[in-house]
Amino acid sequence: MIPRYTTPEMAQIWSDEARYENWFRVELAALIALENQKEIPAGVGQKLKHEAQKINWKNLANRALEIENTTRHDVIAFLSALEEVLGEDSRWLHLGLTSSDVVDTAFAYSLQKSALQIGQRLTALTKILFEQAQKYKHTVCLARTHGQAAEPTTFGLKLLSFAVEMQRNEERLQAAIREIAHGKLSGAVGNYGNIDPRIEEAVMLELGLVPEVVSTQVVPRDRHAIFFGTLAVIAGGLERLAVEIRHLMRSEVAEAFEPFGKGQRGSSAMPHKKNPILTENVTGLARLIRSYAMAAYENQALWHERDISHSSVERVIAPDATAVLDFALLRMTQVMSGLEVDAENMQKHLDATQGLIFSESILLMLAKKGILRQTAYEWVQRAAMNAREGQGDFLSNLKKDTEIKKVLAAKDIDEALDVKHHLRHIDAIFDRVKR
Amino acid sequence: MIPRYTTPEMAQIWSDEARYENWFRVELAALIALENQKEIPAGVGQKLKHEAQKINWKNLANRALEIENTTRHDVIAFLSALEEVLGEDSRWLHLGLTSSDVVDTAFAYSLQKSALQIGQRLTALTKILFEQAQKYKHTVCLARTHGQAAEPTTFGLKLLSFAVEMQRNEERLQAAIREIAHGKLSGAVGNYGNIDPRIEEAVMLELGLVPEVVSTQVVPRDRHAIFFGTLAVIAGGLERLAVEIRHLMRSEVAEAFEPFGKGQRGSSAMPHKKNPILTENVTGLARLIRSYAMAAYENQALWHERDISHSSVERVIAPDATAVLDFALLRMTQVMSGLEVDAENMQKHLDATQGLIFSESILLMLAKKGILRQTAYEWVQRAAMNAREGQGDFLSNLKKDTEIKKVLAAKDIDEALDVKHHLRHIDAIFDRVKR
Amino acid sequence: MIPRYTTPEMAQIWSDEARYENWFRVELAALIALENQKEIPAGVGQKLKHEAQKINWKNLANRALEIENTTRHDVIAFLSALEEVLGEDSRWLHLGLTSSDVVDTAFAYSLQKSALQIGQRLTALTKILFEQAQKYKHTVCLARTHGQAAEPTTFGLKLLSFAVEMQRNEERLQAAIREIAHGKLSGAVGNYGNIDPRIEEAVMLELGLVPEVVSTQVVPRDRHAIFFGTLAVIAGGLERLAVEIRHLMRSEVAEAFEPFGKGQRGSSAMPHKKNPILTENVTGLARLIRSYAMAAYENQALWHERDISHSSVERVIAPDATAVLDFALLRMTQVMSGLEVDAENMQKHLDATQGLIFSESILLMLAKKGILRQTAYEWVQRAAMNAREGQGDFLSNLKKDTEIKKVLAAKDIDEALDVKHHLRHIDAIFDRVKR
Amino acid sequence: MIPRYTTPEMAQIWSDEARYENWFRVELAALIALENQKEIPAGVGQKLKHEAQKINWKNLANRALEIENTTRHDVIAFLSALEEVLGEDSRWLHLGLTSSDVVDTAFAYSLQKSALQIGQRLTALTKILFEQAQKYKHTVCLARTHGQAAEPTTFGLKLLSFAVEMQRNEERLQAAIREIAHGKLSGAVGNYGNIDPRIEEAVMLELGLVPEVVSTQVVPRDRHAIFFGTLAVIAGGLERLAVEIRHLMRSEVAEAFEPFGKGQRGSSAMPHKKNPILTENVTGLARLIRSYAMAAYENQALWHERDISHSSVERVIAPDATAVLDFALLRMTQVMSGLEVDAENMQKHLDATQGLIFSESILLMLAKKGILRQTAYEWVQRAAMNAREGQGDFLSNLKKDTEIKKVLAAKDIDEALDVKHHLRHIDAIFDRVKR
Repeated sequence: MIPRYTTPEMAQIWSDEARYENWFRVELAALIALENQKEIPAGVGQKLKHEAQKINWKNLANRALEIENTTRHDVIAFLSALEEVLGEDSRWLHLGLTSSDVVDTAFAYSLQKSALQIGQRLTALTKILFEQAQKYKHTVCLARTHGQAAEPTTFGLKLLSFAVEMQRNEERLQAAIREIAHGKLSGAVGNYGNIDPRIEEAVMLELGLVPEVVSTQVVPRDRHAIFFGTLAVIAGGLERLAVEIRHLMRSEVAEAFEPFGKGQRGSSAMPHKKNPILTENVTGLARLIRSYAMAAYENQALWHERDISHSSVERVIAPDATAVLDFALLRMTQVMSGLEVDAENMQKHLDATQGLIFSESILLMLAKKGILRQTAYEWVQRAAMNAREGQGDFLSNLKKDTEIKKVLAAKDIDEALDVKHHLRHIDAIFDRVKR
Repeated sequence: MIPRYTTPEMAQIWSDEARYENWFRVELAALIALENQKEIPAGVGQKLKHEAQKINWKNLANRALEIENTTRHDVIAFLSALEEVLGEDSRWLHLGLTSSDVVDTAFAYSLQKSALQIGQRLTALTKILFEQAQKYKHTVCLARTHGQAAEPTTFGLKLLSFAVEMQRNEERLQAAIREIAHGKLSGAVGNYGNIDPRIEEAVMLELGLVPEVVSTQVVPRDRHAIFFGTLAVIAGGLERLAVEIRHLMRSEVAEAFEPFGKGQRGSSAMPHKKNPILTENVTGLARLIRSYAMAAYENQALWHERDISHSSVERVIAPDATAVLDFALLRMTQVMSGLEVDAENMQKHLDATQGLIFSESILLMLAKKGILRQTAYEWVQRAAMNAREGQGDFLSNLKKDTEIKKVLAAKDIDEALDVKHHLRHIDAIFDRVKR
Repeated sequence: MIPRYTTPEMAQIWSDEARYENWFRVELAALIALENQKEIPAGVGQKLKHEAQKINWKNLANRALEIENTTRHDVIAFLSALEEVLGEDSRWLHLGLTSSDVVDTAFAYSLQKSALQIGQRLTALTKILFEQAQKYKHTVCLARTHGQAAEPTTFGLKLLSFAVEMQRNEERLQAAIREIAHGKLSGAVGNYGNIDPRIEEAVMLELGLVPEVVSTQVVPRDRHAIFFGTLAVIAGGLERLAVEIRHLMRSEVAEAFEPFGKGQRGSSAMPHKKNPILTENVTGLARLIRSYAMAAYENQALWHERDISHSSVERVIAPDATAVLDFALLRMTQVMSGLEVDAENMQKHLDATQGLIFSESILLMLAKKGILRQTAYEWVQRAAMNAREGQGDFLSNLKKDTEIKKVLAAKDIDEALDVKHHLRHIDAIFDRVKR
Repeated sequence: MIPRYTTPEMAQIWSDEARYENWFRVELAALIALENQKEIPAGVGQKLKHEAQKINWKNLANRALEIENTTRHDVIAFLSALEEVLGEDSRWLHLGLTSSDVVDTAFAYSLQKSALQIGQRLTALTKILFEQAQKYKHTVCLARTHGQAAEPTTFGLKLLSFAVEMQRNEERLQAAIREIAHGKLSGAVGNYGNIDPRIEEAVMLELGLVPEVVSTQVVPRDRHAIFFGTLAVIAGGLERLAVEIRHLMRSEVAEAFEPFGKGQRGSSAMPHKKNPILTENVTGLARLIRSYAMAAYENQALWHERDISHSSVERVIAPDATAVLDFALLRMTQVMSGLEVDAENMQKHLDATQGLIFSESILLMLAKKGILRQTAYEWVQRAAMNAREGQGDFLSNLKKDTEIKKVLAAKDIDEALDVKHHLRHIDAIFDRVKR
């Protein structure tokens, strides 16, 4: 857990006490299922359930960790700690189970919970992105490719691209949740040697999970690989948005700004600074989440029915990757809802191109008049490059070009430079986005 | 392209000539759509389509690459090369298109094609895994956790686990294909400034792709990140299988062997060697595919409406990752269909444990008799550890243990050590797998 | 910080209080240097140094973090917290400094300290590896390539290979420390706009660091990339050793064992299990450390004179990567010093090959008698493969082979199968290792 | 090999024919050493050396690959192909060697060669960076942190930072070459079972390599991990430089430009575009090289005395990583030698800040007058933020601030805003760089 980048919700999901409580949740569900099959005395389940309400899980966690120092086995330590609290009846716990039945199933339960938490943040960010896209739907600004002024667009359309990416991420997260929401109570090597498959079914139903159709000692780790890979891709989407804002906030661009808190200071040395520290922070967090995915990928090829090498990796990356992503989503939501937009500067940058951004329109107009693309390109490039080097402005260069003026009237040229025409499909794009 | 690890099918999909032919495919579809909208003279489409049948795409590729040396722009070079071959009418090509409309759409087309090729290999491997699983359904062998003898299982169940993982991979690949099968003809910055969205629709229909709902100059790269991430997870599954075979083929285990070709030599120095080189090779290939995914993840955060940094990455990883995976799938299919299994050795290793692998059954039997888990565990561990250290065998140790014999009769103990009982659910597991 | 995998030493180095204390260390050194240059009143340095001895750094850390909630700037918050404690004189702190002067220099100081801690562990592990190598210098065992019995070797030589790799790692770590031990007090953009380079020199001397020859606002991040990359390679060496032990501890191999604690339990379900959990754990930790390196690599390309995206990454990976490596080194040292070796089993596996492991010696003997390699290979392979398939044993097959016996006498063959001859260079290898 | 990103030099180093020629180089050196030890007939070495001069290595490569289809073992195939050409005497080749003796030693030879090639490019880039740094030593421009105008600096100092980083990379490359330049002729499992260590010594001397002090069947892969990690860090340095140029070339910044070829076209749709495609390309190439390092890291933990999983990885990444880096270095050298600099725009951006970039100087001046840092900060931030929001300019705001003017005279303020003062240490920084 990384306190600085962990929300309270995630801190709770991945706390020691939550882990032990979830282990008990699995153990109790298994015990009740056994009881229903008359394999153990009637009434034990209800009794233990009742007793367990009094357990202080934080204390139990501490006691279990203490015992683990001797046994060097976490589940055995947990069961011993439980025995101390629940007494004789606890002997009916863990019957026919192997540690991984408990640990891996509870792990799936926590991963699912953390993913649902991420899902809520994702939905909040998607919502604000759609709202802001709508708000700036017709705010004209420069689209840039290669960091160069390209053609006009609207700031709303820019934002819509991110909103729709986040929608895709919502779907991907749902798929990742379906992947990860599998538990197993199939015993030490996955073949139900000492347990009935119906116990597994009952427990999974109780926990909202699906029984793994063929498990080894654990749920196979391709599921986790896909899960952490999906988190990395969502983080990559946040990074793309963060980088966009950082660019727009550059001193020379100054078209959009992440919110700057009251009392906030940009630099200890330079009192004039307002820095995009929130989006820079998210850019770094994306690198972290990406790197966690690599470790998850390496976890796939466990030996035979399992080795435990994945465990140390997952102890770290499961809380860290989910918490950092949750935090980054929250942060970007704050950035996007507090975003300051300078539409005047946007217009200023459009104007500064002096029409160059319509070079394609002129090119096309020439092409439609039957000029060969190659030739038309050379004519328009000539007018543009001269303008870029300070010889006349693009518009006049076009109009006075000996060859162009044989084909295009000045009026045609003026028409080609109409922003409204260029942006006539914006509404249609917005309309076709499904929400 | 990595000739050593590229199948002919993949070599074709990613050849220069295929790339240019696909670009033309996009250009022609766009031209025909324009013609249908009466934006260009009727009949041009049919004429160019007819002319194009005569094109030698290899020659055209070479000529285009030659021109690119001057223009330093691949699509412009391609159009010039086309103009040389198709003459005057080629002026109607690329009208209102930006390079990325062509290149990115054709790229999606090729990625989809390569993924379908991978899909076929995956299906072949899945099939052989299911067949082998069925064949060895009741071949008893040792399940191992932590590389240690754990409990009995069947070799078929082992294989079933891989078969079912490959089934999951088939589904994931389908999802990845849906992700990647998106093209765009939305112009230089994604807002259809000089092109009608209906042209895009018509072109995508023709190519079997879906129009990207909001594109920039390119299809957003989160789609590619998910795609290459999925390839990495599939490769991780192959690695798990490869590592399993490598373990089983160890000299001391010798339970299963990858096929050894006639005339094959294991070592230039040691004529006695039969080495698992095919599965070791696949283990390495998985590392490659995993690493390509990292590069794809870093491609997501392009600047503004796009920068071209992703392009050099994709030129390499798109052919290499798909080809290497295709090759690795083919190789593992050969390994699994030619797999030699030594059931006698499997049995020998079961026997060598002298019943230790049933320690859980004894533990459970004691627990059901009401012995506290903690206590029962100590009794059974004592009998087991003595046996491991050469003091008696496990079975006799159990039977003569003063405390155990108060609770369990020798007959009970013999019963607990019955393999058949342990494996009673194997058929049920096989039955519940959906195909 | 990952409590489970963090030693007390590392917990201290990366604690909040240590961070603030180190910041103060830099600030005070700078102040004293300014005082020496007569830029601030004489005596302030001694006075603050004296005052600071009373500071409870834990309390100060908490107060600073509290203030940061408003200022959203960690160094400004720290200075404010200091002001509250040190009063008026604290005005002379941070004069001409930018936050990064303090933070980045203190960071280099902590990284160096953590690397020195790692260095101590590395030395301890190297030492035990050399001792164990010496101890088992002449304990004959099987060398295995591709997991297959290859030729005889000694267990000491195996260990020597790891000892020498750790020696290489000691050198690499020293190089990495030299890389990372650079600080900067060059002001907001690295050109000493408001500070004299001599202040930087004095501060670095005081902290045992080297001034960065050309810095931006920060020390350039290629240094950190190399540093974390080096940690990954050291971790990879631990992984190689861990995997070796895991293989040797397999039930079927049983040649060496990691120590098994008194009271330890292998499995909650199977009381007979002794699992290599320590080495499996280290295998996973290596994956973590490897993945952290990737994030460090992505930190290199900061924008212009710096953006702060590297910071969130480093807040996590600096403590986590160094602590996890420190822990893994300690763990492997415990494993290697408590290693149990079963020399009888080693001999058993040598015997089980029935001479096959000397196939190269026979091949060479034939070659020296003038038989073409190709031909000799076929003869020996034939004898070996027949033996592998149960037709005779290798030795008899060789002796009765019609063609071989034309060239080699039975006596020659017996000679070729002499382990002593094979291992005649072991002492020489040990002798040439420099310590 | 990636033809698009492979220079002719690298294509040669990694060609099939070079590989086989290098294998022969090792074999011949070993044979001559054996001859010198009188283990084989005198004169064979000279004879084979003479014969080998006639070998067409391309043909031999093809024949060897053909034979490999049957033997599935590359070195055995190579020896057979050699036998066909060199006849009877070839029987003395490979005596006492194992394939890896040849392959791994030749691999080290090629890696070293490719690294030396990279070293030459690195030196060329470093040289041009120093020259350009010198040229623009006093060209004043804006330093930017967080993408925000920070303080004045010079363009030469910016470049010096990259020049010095490349110097560091030269040193790192030398260290990496020392790491990788190790070969081994220690036989099948590394203990010289059938070969004399003096043969190894002689061969390494001949090839310019160092004998590995303790090898397994191969040179240990920590050396390769360090090597490819170093390439990744060098690539990260190129990326930092490429990103700097891309930023400076943005339409709104327009301070420096990568060269734009005659006849070059920026966009197929927009004739006005001049795009930083070279530096964007290098940005992508860095991602590739980084990802290759990950695969190299995973290669470390080979099983026992070696498994061959590293081989497929290295077949790809060795040529690809070195070639791509060589290409990227060349490309950045071209960019930096043809760099166009617009010093007027640089000045324009400095002016546009209206003195804000000197806020630190004012702050310091106030501090030296005894104003508490906190208070001074608030005063200066107030003047700055008002200016940023269009209320007066910074200079006037400062001068008319009721509190500031109690402490600072207008003259003091003017002085604090002097660029020359700010840049007074530039020469000293340049002077202290060692070349």
